[in-house]
Amino acid sequence: MRDVLAAWRPVIDEEIERLLPRETGADYATSFFGPPTYDYDATAIQHALSDPVWALLDRGGKRWRAVVCCLLIEGFGADPHEYLPYACIPEILHNGTIIVDDVEDGATMRRGESALHHEFGTDVALNAGNAMYFFPLKIVSRDPADLAPDTRLAIYEMLMHELNRTHLGQGMDIHWHNQQAIEISEQQYLEMCACKTGCLGRIVARLATILTDQPEEVEHHAARYAELMSIAFQIGDDILDVETATEAGGAFGKGIGNDVREGKKTLMAIHAAREADPERAARLEELLWADENSTEEIAEVITIFEETDSVAYARECALDIATEARDHLAELDLADEPAENLADFTRFVVERDV
Amino acid sequence: MRDVLAAWRPVIDEEIERLLPRETGADYATSFFGPPTYDYDATAIQHALSDPVWALLDRGGKRWRAVVCCLLIEGFGADPHEYLPYACIPEILHNGTIIVDDVEDGATMRRGESALHHEFGTDVALNAGNAMYFFPLKIVSRDPADLAPDTRLAIYEMLMHELNRTHLGQGMDIHWHNQQAIEISEQQYLEMCACKTGCLGRIVARLATILTDQPEEVEHHAARYAELMSIAFQIGDDILDVETATEAGGAFGKGIGNDVREGKKTLMAIHAAREADPERAARLEELLWADENSTEEIAEVITIFEETDSVAYARECALDIATEARDHLAELDLADEPAENLADFTRFVVERDV
Repeated sequence: MRDVLAAWRPVIDEEIERLLPRETGADYATSFFGPPTYDYDATAIQHALSDPVWALLDRGGKRWRAVVCCLLIEGFGADPHEYLPYACIPEILHNGTIIVDDVEDGATMRRGESALHHEFGTDVALNAGNAMYFFPLKIVSRDPADLAPDTRLAIYEMLMHELNRTHLGQGMDIHWHNQQAIEISEQQYLEMCACKTGCLGRIVARLATILTDQPEEVEHHAARYAELMSIAFQIGDDILDVETATEAGGAFGKGIGNDVREGKKTLMAIHAAREADPERAARLEELLWADENSTEEIAEVITIFEETDSVAYARECALDIATEARDHLAELDLADEPAENLADFTRFVVERDV
Repeated sequence: MRDVLAAWRPVIDEEIERLLPRETGADYATSFFGPPTYDYDATAIQHALSDPVWALLDRGGKRWRAVVCCLLIEGFGADPHEYLPYACIPEILHNGTIIVDDVEDGATMRRGESALHHEFGTDVALNAGNAMYFFPLKIVSRDPADLAPDTRLAIYEMLMHELNRTHLGQGMDIHWHNQQAIEISEQQYLEMCACKTGCLGRIVARLATILTDQPEEVEHHAARYAELMSIAFQIGDDILDVETATEAGGAFGKGIGNDVREGKKTLMAIHAAREADPERAARLEELLWADENSTEEIAEVITIFEETDSVAYARECALDIATEARDHLAELDLADEPAENLADFTRFVVERDV
């Protein structure tokens, strides 16, 4: 899967650059957004939109959302190159959510550099992040693949469904951050992931099925595959955060043990709070709740996770969810090679080390 | 027009409350957003969505966007009560932009109380503000007026057009905030207003024309009416900010002279920078650029505006734009009473004192 991701990445980036060039101007603004009523300030649009978007994209990211969309389209027997602008929709949305989430969480770092709102200011970064919510949706009405009106409507209604639930998921996650007690059920945790991360996955899959005109049942299985894979990806991310911190020993830099610093109620935290004796569970809640954590305190949280086998438990859950994702994938009648890559990806998201 | 606004306000609020009740629960979340994959945390949704939205709505606001939409629908001979959920779309969008703008501007006050991100925290407020961008768009696919698919698609494509340009306008405004030199043409200033404020107005009008199936030319005139009125409203707002500060003499409280404090490049600032002698113009740029302004400095800015007759100039522009708005209104074949109210409203936006 790594090879497939590496091969597709420049193709996706080239397409995003076609949609939003690094150097824009009044002509670009007119062609993409429509003519001005009076007169655009092209410099302002460059600084407010193109600069921050590319500053983030150039820092990396795997573009897996666009790649999975392309692989699904290919699996359904269509040519993904005909639908590249659509495959970029979830990718741009995702990068927009990163900027907004970092403002919400007060994050300082992103992909090894300053968070966008630290580099560009909260005003520019946040407006760019929000523009990245609507910019990709405009692609559908620009209609590069000459879709039937019903298809365009189906895409919009799908997007509105999923993007609303994204905000429910983020709302749940934020609310839990702001509570000291860990009183979340696993079903609620999984729902948060299904909304916050899963909905973007569902957009990836449902775009592919709507674009290639698949029946409802196929759309259902494809969406569930992508949703479950996204949940497994999220849990994998949480595990990675703890493991990197563990391997780093006492030498934590910025960006290591972030979930603990932020007091994130991960599956590991929920499991540990349930399994630890009451005193240790209360200590865990206290450490996650604290505004600041020392290196020792982060190590203490990890020790509590180890005492309760919480990392192993989370990995087991992620593996089960990845298996469930593959079951849904198997219900789709996909071409062999993309099907194998898509199945392979459900393993990658749990076992990856980056 | 004041009476019309006062009469409609409870009707609009009741409708918004039907769409997003003050007290939500898992049943509500399921019915509005669809069933959960696992299990919603109803408490989290209440705290993350309903509480902040109603905290803002209960502080006031004229709801004129919803009212103008209803008056236009009535003017076209249809019953606005059949389309109330749609009339709430621009109103909810507008209140969402308020929350987001306040985070972007680092505002401390809103409608006489703490800005939402100060009351609820940046994370909750911002997520709620962004949820208010997508929540109203979901109304279209819920389809309360049983619209034809083509009509729903037309609404989505219209919304994506306007909401993209909203972010261009905000991007221009932010970029100008961040520059000391006032090098903006009036055409660019009007474009910023047309994008940032005007697009929401255009949504108001275009919803009314699409819902009542008006021909393209009618949609064009209605949209221009609402766009121009929104620009006049924005300029009126800027004038009001200066006049309130002037009338208050030296006794400025928080929330007075805000545009000067924020370094906003209003039409008055652009005019004054152009008309003042170079030394005074440079002093104006310096004062607007400063991070903090004393009471004396705000008074000094206002003096420069007075020396250059900039307030009178801005009022003249706003009146001209309001007249132009009425010209477009006159092109529409509207029922008499709503037509009179809509024309009246173009006067109200320039002459209002609240």
